[in-house]
Amino acid sequence: TDWEIKEQDGEKRLEKCYKFSNFMKALAFTQKVGEEAENQGHHPALLTEWGKVTVTWWTHDIGGLHQNDFVMAAKTDKISEQLVK
Amino acid sequence: TDWEIKEQDGEKRLEKCYKFSNFMKALAFTQKVGEEAENQGHHPALLTEWGKVTVTWWTHDIGGLHQNDFVMAAKTDKISEQLVK
Repeated sequence: TDWEIKEQDGEKRLEKCYKFSNFMKALAFTQKVGEEAENQGHHPALLTEWGKVTVTWWTHDIGGLHQNDFVMAAKTDKISEQLVK
Repeated sequence: TDWEIKEQDGEKRLEKCYKFSNFMKALAFTQKVGEEAENQGHHPALLTEWGKVTVTWWTHDIGGLHQNDFVMAAKTDKISEQLVK
């Protein structure tokens, strides 16, 4: 699956769900994406559950999507490719 | 605030939002709660955002709340007390 544009609270957001074979692999992904977010100074919502992480990017200041959100989405995909699912 | 019982997808769930002063403190809490969940073999939903983590406990097998969810909620509070907000 690819990134979906979803509307929440009147704001457009980029959202994607990544699947993993257990909880700890999902948690490790959350940690990696969180660290990269901190490095880039742009922070997502990360919903960690058993076997999956739902990542959401948006730019609160403009009430929607900025180019940076798409850049971070691509970085998130790259992190996902480097991890064992 | 305390734990709230919320209904989602027809299942009762325990939910609480913990506040932090930045993203990395929130992420550290998610990691700690996730590790404890793995140790106990019972896994929550952890929504990590800038400055807050929403923790949700429920028992999917019974479609609602089990004693174990309340035990894990108490453990989550204990972890929160040990961290810098």
